[in-house]
Amino acid sequence: MLNGERKIARPLRWAMVGGGRLSQVGYKHRCGALRDNTAFQLVAGAFDLDPERGRDFGVNIGVDPSRCYPNYQTMFREEARREDGIEVVSIATPNATHFEIAWAALNAGLDVICEKPLFFTSDEVRKVKALAEEKGLIVGVTYGFSGHPLLMQMRAMIAHGEIGDVRIVDLQYTHGFNATDAVDKVSDAQKWRVDPKIAGPTFVLGDISTHTYYISQLVMPHMKIRELLCDRQSFIPSRAPLEDNAFVLMHYENGAVGRLWASSVNAGCMDSQRIRIVGSKASLVWSDSNPSELRYEVQGQPNQTLYRGMPYLDPSANAIERLGALHTEGLTESWANIYLKFAIAIDAKRRGDEKTLAELVYPDIEAGLEGVRWLENCVKSASNGSIWVPFE
Amino acid sequence: MLNGERKIARPLRWAMVGGGRLSQVGYKHRCGALRDNTAFQLVAGAFDLDPERGRDFGVNIGVDPSRCYPNYQTMFREEARREDGIEVVSIATPNATHFEIAWAALNAGLDVICEKPLFFTSDEVRKVKALAEEKGLIVGVTYGFSGHPLLMQMRAMIAHGEIGDVRIVDLQYTHGFNATDAVDKVSDAQKWRVDPKIAGPTFVLGDISTHTYYISQLVMPHMKIRELLCDRQSFIPSRAPLEDNAFVLMHYENGAVGRLWASSVNAGCMDSQRIRIVGSKASLVWSDSNPSELRYEVQGQPNQTLYRGMPYLDPSANAIERLGALHTEGLTESWANIYLKFAIAIDAKRRGDEKTLAELVYPDIEAGLEGVRWLENCVKSASNGSIWVPFE
Amino acid sequence: MLNGERKIARPLRWAMVGGGRLSQVGYKHRCGALRDNTAFQLVAGAFDLDPERGRDFGVNIGVDPSRCYPNYQTMFREEARREDGIEVVSIATPNATHFEIAWAALNAGLDVICEKPLFFTSDEVRKVKALAEEKGLIVGVTYGFSGHPLLMQMRAMIAHGEIGDVRIVDLQYTHGFNATDAVDKVSDAQKWRVDPKIAGPTFVLGDISTHTYYISQLVMPHMKIRELLCDRQSFIPSRAPLEDNAFVLMHYENGAVGRLWASSVNAGCMDSQRIRIVGSKASLVWSDSNPSELRYEVQGQPNQTLYRGMPYLDPSANAIERLGALHTEGLTESWANIYLKFAIAIDAKRRGDEKTLAELVYPDIEAGLEGVRWLENCVKSASNGSIWVPFE
Amino acid sequence: MLNGERKIARPLRWAMVGGGRLSQVGYKHRCGALRDNTAFQLVAGAFDLDPERGRDFGVNIGVDPSRCYPNYQTMFREEARREDGIEVVSIATPNATHFEIAWAALNAGLDVICEKPLFFTSDEVRKVKALAEEKGLIVGVTYGFSGHPLLMQMRAMIAHGEIGDVRIVDLQYTHGFNATDAVDKVSDAQKWRVDPKIAGPTFVLGDISTHTYYISQLVMPHMKIRELLCDRQSFIPSRAPLEDNAFVLMHYENGAVGRLWASSVNAGCMDSQRIRIVGSKASLVWSDSNPSELRYEVQGQPNQTLYRGMPYLDPSANAIERLGALHTEGLTESWANIYLKFAIAIDAKRRGDEKTLAELVYPDIEAGLEGVRWLENCVKSASNGSIWVPFE
Repeated sequence: MLNGERKIARPLRWAMVGGGRLSQVGYKHRCGALRDNTAFQLVAGAFDLDPERGRDFGVNIGVDPSRCYPNYQTMFREEARREDGIEVVSIATPNATHFEIAWAALNAGLDVICEKPLFFTSDEVRKVKALAEEKGLIVGVTYGFSGHPLLMQMRAMIAHGEIGDVRIVDLQYTHGFNATDAVDKVSDAQKWRVDPKIAGPTFVLGDISTHTYYISQLVMPHMKIRELLCDRQSFIPSRAPLEDNAFVLMHYENGAVGRLWASSVNAGCMDSQRIRIVGSKASLVWSDSNPSELRYEVQGQPNQTLYRGMPYLDPSANAIERLGALHTEGLTESWANIYLKFAIAIDAKRRGDEKTLAELVYPDIEAGLEGVRWLENCVKSASNGSIWVPFE
Repeated sequence: MLNGERKIARPLRWAMVGGGRLSQVGYKHRCGALRDNTAFQLVAGAFDLDPERGRDFGVNIGVDPSRCYPNYQTMFREEARREDGIEVVSIATPNATHFEIAWAALNAGLDVICEKPLFFTSDEVRKVKALAEEKGLIVGVTYGFSGHPLLMQMRAMIAHGEIGDVRIVDLQYTHGFNATDAVDKVSDAQKWRVDPKIAGPTFVLGDISTHTYYISQLVMPHMKIRELLCDRQSFIPSRAPLEDNAFVLMHYENGAVGRLWASSVNAGCMDSQRIRIVGSKASLVWSDSNPSELRYEVQGQPNQTLYRGMPYLDPSANAIERLGALHTEGLTESWANIYLKFAIAIDAKRRGDEKTLAELVYPDIEAGLEGVRWLENCVKSASNGSIWVPFE
Repeated sequence: MLNGERKIARPLRWAMVGGGRLSQVGYKHRCGALRDNTAFQLVAGAFDLDPERGRDFGVNIGVDPSRCYPNYQTMFREEARREDGIEVVSIATPNATHFEIAWAALNAGLDVICEKPLFFTSDEVRKVKALAEEKGLIVGVTYGFSGHPLLMQMRAMIAHGEIGDVRIVDLQYTHGFNATDAVDKVSDAQKWRVDPKIAGPTFVLGDISTHTYYISQLVMPHMKIRELLCDRQSFIPSRAPLEDNAFVLMHYENGAVGRLWASSVNAGCMDSQRIRIVGSKASLVWSDSNPSELRYEVQGQPNQTLYRGMPYLDPSANAIERLGALHTEGLTESWANIYLKFAIAIDAKRRGDEKTLAELVYPDIEAGLEGVRWLENCVKSASNGSIWVPFE
Repeated sequence: MLNGERKIARPLRWAMVGGGRLSQVGYKHRCGALRDNTAFQLVAGAFDLDPERGRDFGVNIGVDPSRCYPNYQTMFREEARREDGIEVVSIATPNATHFEIAWAALNAGLDVICEKPLFFTSDEVRKVKALAEEKGLIVGVTYGFSGHPLLMQMRAMIAHGEIGDVRIVDLQYTHGFNATDAVDKVSDAQKWRVDPKIAGPTFVLGDISTHTYYISQLVMPHMKIRELLCDRQSFIPSRAPLEDNAFVLMHYENGAVGRLWASSVNAGCMDSQRIRIVGSKASLVWSDSNPSELRYEVQGQPNQTLYRGMPYLDPSANAIERLGALHTEGLTESWANIYLKFAIAIDAKRRGDEKTLAELVYPDIEAGLEGVRWLENCVKSASNGSIWVPFE
């Protein structure tokens, strides 16, 4: 059980690019990184395209005004001159800028934590991966929902055969906040998400369902896709060619089948992500709208509900437990858990502790690569008439 | 509100083919037909392939032993000779026999109520439809879940524009009772369902998801499929070529999209059918595992739960209400409602009351035809590599 | 599993007093008694205070017009003259008339099935009980919710020690349909319920929570109350002295404690009855709003949900299963089950089959007596300042 | 919406007494206080009765070893000598020590944040209150569940008449973790809770249900108790005279009635706190096990579910929103919200900003006093035979 005591010798000196006052996700990064003040310490930032607003914001969250920078280039340059300069940077900017910032950061000797979807193409990911390896640096991806303890429970139960062989994978990340184009007209955060020059080749597939796809990999790492089919729509025509709704069908190498629904036009839906893994003996069901409960449904037996923080859970789940049973955890704890793992990975990398790195389960650049690759295959299928394409 | 008082002048003289002691669905037919003893009266039957068991069963449910027949042929012949002979027959036998029995019944001047899927091919349905029209007789299909009052509520709300334009249709009928082949080995009822000679071209698609597909048509009669794609599997290999799991994707003529999941290997799943209709403004959600609640989710407003029997419901829903709010209705009431409608249709047909026939919403032979057609298209897609096929 | 086949040699000739066109509960009696036409046959009735309406109604549900009587006195007298006269009568009239009708029925040699609360006083119940014993007749009480199969499951699990020693009993039957006095002004059915001359000494305690109290006795027959305290209110003053809300606290002889909430002013509440039995090891939870699920919560283990119709249930539960797992049962099945047991009891009594009578679990006159006694103690407590009174 | 930007000029210098490595609640204090590093800064602590362990722990969470003190007396003395000494202290020690530490802290010029139940007697609370007023210092009470945004929504809706007049209050805080005495034997945290010398006059009433009672006051501040009755039990005899289960009935001055159930022997119960407020028109229902949903049940209308973070909520709820709709908040956010309010109160007090103080809704010493007073009345009732006692 975590209680905030340090897991690494000292907090890492951390900065953000983006994530300023107008950013919803920026606060999640800070909540995650700074949860216990023992993994990261926020010392600098290029928080905003508007330098004044960025500085004002930085000061308000406790950053020294002299380390609130107008842009990432300046920050990397100036911080490199300081003895106590930043060591790690998180990138919480629109998608189109991820690659150049990550590239610059690695070249500046910084470990990188980056929003999803990582980059526009898997080639870009592979380049960055090679650079990170060359530099001996870590690249983490903020699949921010993936730190919930009960996902480790699912992973352990599937690994231990408690559902039998995986047969059917049912994934969903949907909401209805874009049912009309009202938000598209007023929100900068929404505008860029439906502009392919900034968002990349997808809207909801990349923006939300890569989270769910990563969770599916997290809980069943042995499952590889053989081919998939993606059918996508733009119910609000101004969003075309980017999709506000998509169905994906998947065939796995072991004969299992899967499907995924991504949508921001699922009017009135408030339960966000759902994942159901059906095995030959039993199923596991989890939703991020109630992340403290895991449903375990064994065919022919009473259905079971497992609760976060209980002694009967797998040690891997309770290792990242923070509040204890009956005390509700939310998305903040999930972010805190993945940021803690980023810190542990970075620390291990520096110490050359390959054993820790090998055992640590967290959204690394491989996970980022897999997400971009999945998007590429989805787009390839959709663009060719929603046909089956081999997963490449 | 219904309370059992007669809706037609006298109960119709009714018989069953099949539905004997070993049949689970037979009891549902009887519960539906005989609910109030004012729509149908059970006077004869060819309940069982085993004539002795059939007669013993018939006597035990109150049928005169002399009218418990060894087979349908004898029954139709002998009953035709009686002044008080049967007028209507329900067919609750394995699929392969539906056509010949229905054909014989119509030729014997009997109205027909038949299990789904109606016949093997849509051509057969068209032939029977023509014969029924020629004879002036009714053919009803026991989509037994379709009589729940809240489905009429969904239909009314969609028709009144309360969800806006339909965009996404999400259908599911899954359970896990065939997760292993244990049942296939011991149960006659299961054996024939996976034998294409008896079951026809599908297992779960026809056996369960035609119910759900019909419900989707019931609640949104204006929605027509343009093309579909079906991906089906036999997780228990001995069931091949028949599927125990299938995913269907659908494109509707108005630009809406849909998907359906049919499965009998969804291990541990106990909630059977779910239907979600997403419109441009709101969604409606219903499940037959809790048929007294209807979820109405308007984007940007608190989600609503509507309850069966409440004054705020549409008159079409409360017209088939029986028990009143707070008093749980189940599948029995649904069957009773459709059987009552069969009686009303038959009575209206005899009286030449075309107005009643035109207004009555019930699973008629058109609904049966549409179900078989949908199956044909699913099989065509699946057999050609799970490709998109125009809906023909 | 029940499928409608006869459990007694022939259906009993049955009549109703009350329960006519304006009665909601009358339909439930008929649905229960006539479910399979193998336990009872409706042959006569004095359905209504308005004889014309009563006859019209009787004819509409299939009763011979000559056996639709203007009042119970005439019915008992005339039917006694027929060779095929009625054998059993159900009383579905306002409370004040139960005693005189039951008394007359027994004296006419009829078995009696009566609405709850049985009579105004436990003395009346004892008199009727003595008369029934003298005449060798059965008196059943329509605790209509008590026939749900999962209540037998609860009973079996508690008896088998699966929750340990019972410690806490939490009972609730509440709704909000009387939150204002609107219904009191327009509905005859509501008017008499708040008139002590017709309803007796209580409103919601007797009208609804005796159901729940009986269920508690059904599932834990060994638990005896030692003392109780009742605090009751009339939030709509015109209902005083009768209560529209009440809290009851109970001390059981074994040291367990209990509480009950009865209310018809619980605004917006749509889940009716809930019962939670807490033992030293585990709890059981059931609600009549979802009667096909039983929650079994073992401390320190995943919570379990048991489903109706599953093979893992106790044989006593599956003995009254009708539709099978996944197929929703409702209140109708519960009524059908208790009516079937009334028939079995009456038949056994006539045959002198004491073994069957001893083993049959159903709401008999003892259950009716216990309910009236519980109400007497509640009123005594409430009338004396909501103090603890020994359970007498 | 909160995003961590400062609400006061600079973070307050903060210390803890207790809350060390073995304390579950200590981490919640830190998560709350240090959420954004803009309200409090942890600079010192007397974390543990074991000074070595306390220092090690303090260092591990980032406290200067020289400011990890062996006891609160030393800490208050030493810190008073520093220019940058502590300004505020949180008390997370067993109940028996609250009074002396709070007294000493106030005398040392420190604002105080203290665990519930505040002290053993209301007289002690009144003394501390007088001292705090004299010193111009704040005393806050960590009713840690009371910071959930939807509780402000309930408060606003009740104040605005959206449920009508409050009639019935139904409160519950139960769990089953003490169903056996296993924990009593091994856990220090549990041992003192059932020792009246350390815990005070109650176990579950003070330890858990004062949270729920405070929430009831928070959401309906106008409701005053007139008299109450408390019935308490020790199902594990070794806990006597302290209760592991209690039922409380309440009569409010406006004629409303209430009840509360506190228990740590509710075997298998995992949903912790539930609160239902029934008005003359509608009810509101909330549970801390799913704190992002608020049920609004208007009699005669579809039931509604309101979700955290939605624009339709009252501004007072969204003022403490942090993550946005669809993103699950948990107990951490609730603690962060009340700690932020403590900081704002302390800051306002120092600035003489009476307007802010008057408008700020948070668990202050009045709330602590009310909680202790409620416990005193419960104990008085229970000790006199579970009788009604006027609320004094």
